[in-house]
This record gives sequence, structure tokens and C-alpha cells, in this order.
Amino acid sequence: MGNIKSLDTLRHSAAHIMAAAVQELFPESKLAIGPAIENGFYYDFEINKTLTPKDLTNIELKMIEIVKKDYPFIHLSVPRTNVIKKLKTKMEKYKLEIISTIEENSLSMYQCGSFIDLCKGPHINKTGDLKYFKLLSVAGAYWRGDENREQLQRIYGTAFFTEKDLTTYLNQMLQAKKRDHRMLGKLLDLFSINSNIGGGLILWHPKGTIIKKTIEHYLEQLHISNSYELISTPHIASDKLFNISGHLQTYNEYMFAPMQIENNPYRIKPMNCPMHLTIYKNKLHSYRDLPIRYAELGTVYRFEKSGVLYGLLRVRGFTQDDGHIIVSPQDLEDEILTTFNMTINCLATFGFKEYKVYLATKPEKNYVGNLKDWLLAEQSIQNVLNRIHYPYEIDQGGGAFYGPKIDIKIKDAVGRLWQCSTIQVDFNLTERFDIYYIDSSGRKKRPFMIHRALIGSIERFIGILLEHYEGKLPLWLSPIQVTILNISKEQINYCKELLKKLQNHGIRANFNYKNANIGYKIRDSINQKIPYILIIGKQEQSKNMVSMRNTKTNKTFELMNIDTILSMLQDEINYKH
Amino acid sequence: MGNIKSLDTLRHSAAHIMAAAVQELFPESKLAIGPAIENGFYYDFEINKTLTPKDLTNIELKMIEIVKKDYPFIHLSVPRTNVIKKLKTKMEKYKLEIISTIEENSLSMYQCGSFIDLCKGPHINKTGDLKYFKLLSVAGAYWRGDENREQLQRIYGTAFFTEKDLTTYLNQMLQAKKRDHRMLGKLLDLFSINSNIGGGLILWHPKGTIIKKTIEHYLEQLHISNSYELISTPHIASDKLFNISGHLQTYNEYMFAPMQIENNPYRIKPMNCPMHLTIYKNKLHSYRDLPIRYAELGTVYRFEKSGVLYGLLRVRGFTQDDGHIIVSPQDLEDEILTTFNMTINCLATFGFKEYKVYLATKPEKNYVGNLKDWLLAEQSIQNVLNRIHYPYEIDQGGGAFYGPKIDIKIKDAVGRLWQCSTIQVDFNLTERFDIYYIDSSGRKKRPFMIHRALIGSIERFIGILLEHYEGKLPLWLSPIQVTILNISKEQINYCKELLKKLQNHGIRANFNYKNANIGYKIRDSINQKIPYILIIGKQEQSKNMVSMRNTKTNKTFELMNIDTILSMLQDEINYKH
Repeated sequence: MGNIKSLDTLRHSAAHIMAAAVQELFPESKLAIGPAIENGFYYDFEINKTLTPKDLTNIELKMIEIVKKDYPFIHLSVPRTNVIKKLKTKMEKYKLEIISTIEENSLSMYQCGSFIDLCKGPHINKTGDLKYFKLLSVAGAYWRGDENREQLQRIYGTAFFTEKDLTTYLNQMLQAKKRDHRMLGKLLDLFSINSNIGGGLILWHPKGTIIKKTIEHYLEQLHISNSYELISTPHIASDKLFNISGHLQTYNEYMFAPMQIENNPYRIKPMNCPMHLTIYKNKLHSYRDLPIRYAELGTVYRFEKSGVLYGLLRVRGFTQDDGHIIVSPQDLEDEILTTFNMTINCLATFGFKEYKVYLATKPEKNYVGNLKDWLLAEQSIQNVLNRIHYPYEIDQGGGAFYGPKIDIKIKDAVGRLWQCSTIQVDFNLTERFDIYYIDSSGRKKRPFMIHRALIGSIERFIGILLEHYEGKLPLWLSPIQVTILNISKEQINYCKELLKKLQNHGIRANFNYKNANIGYKIRDSINQKIPYILIIGKQEQSKNMVSMRNTKTNKTFELMNIDTILSMLQDEINYKH
Repeated sequence: MGNIKSLDTLRHSAAHIMAAAVQELFPESKLAIGPAIENGFYYDFEINKTLTPKDLTNIELKMIEIVKKDYPFIHLSVPRTNVIKKLKTKMEKYKLEIISTIEENSLSMYQCGSFIDLCKGPHINKTGDLKYFKLLSVAGAYWRGDENREQLQRIYGTAFFTEKDLTTYLNQMLQAKKRDHRMLGKLLDLFSINSNIGGGLILWHPKGTIIKKTIEHYLEQLHISNSYELISTPHIASDKLFNISGHLQTYNEYMFAPMQIENNPYRIKPMNCPMHLTIYKNKLHSYRDLPIRYAELGTVYRFEKSGVLYGLLRVRGFTQDDGHIIVSPQDLEDEILTTFNMTINCLATFGFKEYKVYLATKPEKNYVGNLKDWLLAEQSIQNVLNRIHYPYEIDQGGGAFYGPKIDIKIKDAVGRLWQCSTIQVDFNLTERFDIYYIDSSGRKKRPFMIHRALIGSIERFIGILLEHYEGKLPLWLSPIQVTILNISKEQINYCKELLKKLQNHGIRANFNYKNANIGYKIRDSINQKIPYILIIGKQEQSKNMVSMRNTKTNKTFELMNIDTILSMLQDEINYKH
């Protein structure tokens, strides 16, 4: 009990119990699907009325009844024809459509009480094992995620093994809601998504672009100072490239459909690696040149069903801080260590200092590459993790088919874990692209390749940052760092001078000259999450009185000297986090 | 005589005369097409042998014969059936294919001597009017520009009205050949194009990326300091957007084919404007907020036939320094002036100080917008050009269908003109997107919109820079600014220290520690167009002797102090050009 798999089982069973409750309360409802998901479960229903919060409460009460009755979950094997006959009587058209895609003659079903559902299992033993659960929300969802099909109602819920876990999670949810990055994005005018352009495609407004560019500029400098070479590659390529890389064979479901150019299919790229390797192959490399470290802030496009798109956190187009390292086998371990340290430093710069580390090892089957390389790479990663004395979990068999990897999940202010960083060894692409270097004895030799991303997707990372900081970004990332407020019209000229001075020193400042009450202007600036407010009061002894307020600490410094303000701000910006 | 249109006539006639010469020398040759182009003309032929330079000379001699005979160009109207009959006899399959797309029953033909060609004309009066011409080269070309069709041989030539113009042009060609950016791109390892990825799609190698990023960073700072707001938009959008913008109706031939996403067609964007206007529309704007200036280094993709792709100068994907300004009618003139001055300053920073300015006015027909707006916009541009006292030419009727524009062509070191900058007023998109602002009396009002690009395409501009400077870029743009060369092994440690010091001061330096003759290393550095060479000699009085060579001026400074070197370099970098 308590591990991830059994939590999925618990939640999937909760989905069955919820479906049983819904069918008791709404006998005409039709069932679609009800899986366990990352933080809970859902079930999609066709119901002739729009569900209200009150309906959700009633469904939850009915679930409690079913739990109390402690029905066992019984596994049944039922002949296909019997199942179809029964489903037809109940007009369960979605289940019938699912069955039409299953070939077996005997179908796996699960029963609890009088409720029977088509299901592969596994389940908890009895409904009474579900103790701590909560229904969360209801939302529209298209059948099969296809906007041209029927619209259904999706009820989300969650379940845990202990009351503490459930309470912690519900608290996190409550906290998260207050800092929802979509709400903050709108409030702070950072970005939008527009249906004329398409779901999952982010339009960065001026203030959002400042955040994005500031992160990009920091990342570029970080890579240059870590001996990476920046490169820049196109967003489309002929299918020839993705045939060589094998993405067309193994990654097709996430790739956009082809577009025809002079009768040849081209694709918008889902990954940068094939292009980076093409640049590597453009000339001969000697062992003396290795490791070669290429980095690109490469914007990639991946297909996601419209139903799963979610603000900045799940998009169709995003910019990766993508790096590929070509390294000789003997330098692999040191290079992984260097990469790991660089990643941790980068995350710390953004204020993330707690994380969980996972080593994902060779899958049982369907892997490529030889065992010797797998062993060497896994051992190298393990050595690195031991050398840095950082606790880690082993995800046995959880590696990519092409190599083992380190995943790093950062913990945000609410306690949620987000996987951003990854360091992956790849035995596949070096073979497919015939990547080699010339060793010290003049022979061609196959290097190792490392894929790595420090923060992953810049779009998603900004979403995480916004929620982590409740929109109150660190000074260096804030679109507006300082706002200048005048108490009366007499200070306007001085405020303009001050604005110019700050801007000339590279501070992103603005001047709110609106003819409004100073209290209102201060509240507005706090609402806009501007880190510092300079309030300019009346002249005394021919000097304007300046007070500076830090909106995070709520501390106010009176009678400030402008040069002191400048150096305080610059120190904080340079320190970053 | 002497204007652009009649030069086209001269060149197109030269193409006819060349075709006549080819058919005399190679009676089995088949004719395809022979247009006038920007700097000359070409004709495509199917000939059973690969043409050599000697063939070109013979064709030219034959052309001189035809010129001497001074045949008149005679216009004929020939019944379609007669033309087809004759062409069938001669098995002129390409001409027959062309005729199959023409609907008229009587076809326009031109005859000079015994040579008759399908042609709309116009032509010079007689072959003797062609006095100054030269055949230049022969290259492969696909029929219809389609790589799945027949491969033909294209002969390029040029013609001018005066001997001086011809000589100047041939000289330019010779100069240009020595500084061909494709050759320089390879020599300096800046970029490549790979057939697995596709024609016209640039892979920027590390050194090329430094140039590209340096330009981009400069442009971003320039725009910020000129009160632009940077924004960032996706590379794809639903066809809905391009229907609203009208690009699907008016720009379709340059747009890539659609890709289907969940049964909706999406396109890779050929322009950024529709997305910029979508951001503008995201909120309400008051007259107090105007002008709003958005800028994006937006990578766009446009279809060009594979036959016309040419290094960095004609590509399928490129990054525009794209800006859109929303401005009230009363501020239009000032805004155009500001934009013009910003453009000129930008071009000067890159070392371009000579240019030609064109004002392109309302087309005779098929324009949009009302006459009052056209007049106001044309007058505003004219006022600006008069205010700056810069000579300009009027291109009557040469404006876009959506508004008048200023085009600026820069003159390179060889004397060639390149159109990079454009400032265009647009009456169309503001209507189509229903763009408005709230004026001082609270009413919705339609603003003007300015499209503008300072350098146009960064890819193409880098191509121009490389040719302009023969690869010897200004210091601030050079991928490697300084190379350190040691005379013997004894200086290696000192060189490494020096390298670190330079890099810590933001200088892009490298250390060539190769165990080779110093003369060879110097030649190699000059060949790599590195602006400064530091040669580190033996110690004297426990100090290493440093001499610095400027590879552009060939001046060498002996016994240099490192701090002096640093400040010299930094001054030159900051000064830019």
C-alpha cells in the first residue's frame, strides 16, 4: 500500500464508485471513460442536465453510502455478445464504441454492488477500502477529446490512503487556486490565448515578453559561461530528417500533420535534436574537440488534444532550453556531474532549492543500444548521484527506450512537485545519424550523447514561477521593477527626471501620473505586484522627499537618497533570487 | 531610354537573340522561357550536351553576328493552330505546354531574322540596338521550378544601354564573386543548408549564431530605447486568423500548405502582423496610450520555388525585425519621421551610410482604403522626406494595395543596391481586424497602422554584411574578436591567463595553442577574418612581450599593455561601426 501504482488503483476504483453513484442518481446517464490521473481521477458522463455544485455534493453522499455497504470488487469474464446485448439495452453508446475497438471474445468486467463496468482492473478489494476522497469539480469534455464529437460532463475527484494526505492535497489545491497562473496572466496582462490563432499557442504581451526574454537572456549567458556553443535551427524540416531520426516511427502521435512543399512532406519540429546532430555532422570532429556542447532556445510544436491544454502548463508550442552534448565514453561521468550541478545552480537562481531526484533505468524490453553501454551510462549516473550526496529514488525500468536518465522535480511554495529538468543519455540517435569522432589513434569512434534541459519549457516554467511566487516575481524577473507615484501635480517634473535616471541605469520603471488619490495608486501598484514603489512627496529645503516601499516585505524606507535606491536595486537584481 | 522598364525590354530582347544563337548552334535544342530579371536575363534550354565556357563564348559570338545583321523585331499575330503545328514539327514541348495554358485563339509572336518566339513583347526595334551585353554563366534549372520535372540548362547574361554601365556591373560581379557569402559562410563555418532539412532553411553554426544573436540583441535594445514594446508570438496559427487578415486571399502563393490539427487547417505564419493586431485587440486602448509600438524578431516562413533559393539572400525561413505601430492620424507624420531616423541610425551602425530612398504611391487600381486616407498618408511621407532634406525618387503607383510606403535601398562596398528597410502605411488590416482606440471624447476611432522593418530579414542582412565586408565584419559583430597566438610552448600558461582575462571582460577570444609555426598561425587567423591577433613572445624582465595586430589595417602595435588592449577593444566594440 502507499506506492504510486496502488494509489492509481484506489483512484480508479473511486471512479467506478462515482459512476455507480451517478447512475443511481441519474439513471439515464451514459458512461464514457473514467481513468486515474496524476492527482486523482475523473469520469466522463452524458447527462441531460448541467451538473451543479449541489449535484456534486449529492453524488459524494451517494458514494459514501456505497462505500459503507462495503461491496467487494468482483472480476468477471463475460462473452462479448452478452456484454453488447446488455449495453444496447441501456443504450450505452460510448461503451459500445469502445468495445468495437477491442478484439477479444471474452471481455473483462468489474462489478461492485449492482454496478458493472467494462474494465481491465485492477481494483481495491472492496468499496469500504475507499476512505479519504473528495469530488472537486465538473467541466466540459469532448468524447475522444475531439471537438467535433459529443460534449460530455467530466467530474473530477481525488482519493488518498490517509486523511493527512487528502487534507494536504486539498490545502494545496486551495493555495494553488489563489495563485492560478491563468488568473495572474490576465491580471498582470502577461499573455493570452486566442481562438483565431489556436489553443495551446501563447501570445506573449509586452510584460510577459519581458519575463520570457529575461529568462532567455539569463539562460544564454549561463550556457555561454558553461562552455556551450549556441546554435539556431529552423522550425520546419523535411520528413527525410524525421525518418532518419526515427521520430516519424516512434513519436508520430505528438507530431503535427505534414504540410506539402513542392510535393515533399515537411513538418513543424517537435524536437531540436535531429537538427543539432545535422550541425555536428557538418564537419569532422577530433577527440580534442570533445565534449561539444550545443544549446538552443528552440521553439518546438507538439500535438496535444485540445481537451488537455491548460494555460501555460500544457501547450502546443513551447521554447525548450535544449542542449545536446557529444562526449567520449571516458568523459561521460564528469559531464553528467557538470550538467547536474549547472542544473541545480540554475534552479536555485529562480528560487527553487528543494527538489526530488529520480534515476530512471533500462526498460525491461523494447530498448535500443547494447547492454554494455546501458551499464556504463547507468553506473555513471549512479556515481554522480553518489558523489553529490543527494538522496534519489530509482525508477526501475522507467528510462527512455534510448537510454537512462536523471529527472529532477522541483517543489513549489505550495508543496507541489514539478518535473522540469532532465538529463538523458541517448544511444539511439548517435547510431541513426552515424555520429562519430576521430580518436587519438585516428579511428572513427561512436561518442555518447546527452540530451538535457535545465528548466524544460520556458512557457511552462513561467506558469510555475507565477504560481510559486503568487505573481510576485523576484526583482530581476519583474516586468516593472519600480513604479513612481506622485502625491500631487507639483512633483510631476521631478518624477519624470527620476524615471529617466532609473531607466538610464537599466531599471524597468514606470511613472503613474494618474490624477488619483495616492492610496489608490499604491493599492493599484501592489495589485500589479510591482516590487518597489517610490512615493514622491512635497519639497522640503528644495529637495523632493522620496520614500521607497518594498511591496513584498511591506517595509518602507523614508527620506531615501536616489543613489542609495539605485545601488540597492542593482544589488538585488544582480543577486537574482 | 535608360529607365527601368526599357532596360527590361532591352534584356528580354537579348534573351531572344541568345535563343536564336543557341538554336543556330544547337538545332536540336528545345526552348523553355527567357525573361528579363533584376540584373540581366536568362533563357532555359533543353540541350543534349552540358554547355561549357567555350560554348558560352561561341553563343556570344553568334549573338554578335545576329546583332550586326540588325534584324528588325517584328510583331506577329498567328492563329493558335498554326503555331501549334509548327511547334509540333520542331518538337518544342515546353512551348507547347505553355500554349496549353493560354486561351487566346490568336497568339502573339516576335520574329527577328528567322527566329520566331512566342512572346507578349515589347522589344527593342532591331537587333542592332543591343550593343553592350555579356553572357555570364550556365546553371541547371528545373522546368517550372519543379524538381520532379525535366532538368534544363539556364544561360544567364546581362545587357546595358552604355558601355560604362556594363563595365561597372561586370566589375561589381567580379568583386561580388570574391566576397560570395556562401563561400565565406563555409570558410568561416557560419551556417549550412542541408537537404535532409530542406532548401532555404538555414542551420546557424556556433559562429554564425554569435553574429545572429549579436544583431538580434542590438535590435532589441534599439527598439526598447525607442519606446517599443517587445512581444512574442507563435509560428503557427489557425486559418481563421489568415482569413480575417486576408492573407489567404491575397498572399496565398507565398504561404506554405496547411497542416491539419484536429480537423482544422493551420499554417506556419508568413507574416507577424495578424498576431500583433490580435495582441492589440486584447484590451481597450485610449488615445493617451498611442502611439503603441510593438516589435518582434519574428521568424516567418514563405514559399519560394527551390530554383530561386540562394544562400542567405533568398530563403524559405527568416527572422524579420518586424514592427507595427498603431498611431492616431494627427501623429502619423511625426511617427514616420521618428521611424525613418531610427532606420537610418540603425543602418549606419552596421556601416551603411549611402542609400537610395523611394516613395511608392497609390496603385492605379485594386487598392483598398479611402482616398482621403491615401492623400493624408502620402502627404505625411512626402513632408517627412522634405523635412529631412534627403533626395528621393517617387515610384508612382508602386505602393502596396493597402497603403503608400518608403523603401530604402542600401549601397554596399561593391556599389550594389539592396532593399532592406521599409516603412509602410496600412489601411487594410486596421479595417479587417476592426482596430480602434477611444478618442478624447470617448468615441471609437480608427487609427493608422505602420508596418516597418529596419533591416528586413536578419538572414539576408547577414548575407549582405558578409559580402559588404568581405567577411571582415566590424569588431562588435565578429564571432571571434581576438585570437591569441603563442610563439613557443613556454607562453602557454600566460596565454591561458590572458584568454581568461579577455573573456571575463566580455571579449570573444580564443587561444590557438596548435604546435605550428607562428607565421602559419598568423596566416590562418587572417584567413579566418579575426580582427585582432595577439602574438605572445618570450619573457623579458619577467614580462611577456605582447604585440597586437589589426588584420584590417595590417597595423601592428608592439609591447602592448593588456589594460590598454582591453580598453582599445572595448571602445571599438561600443562604438560599433
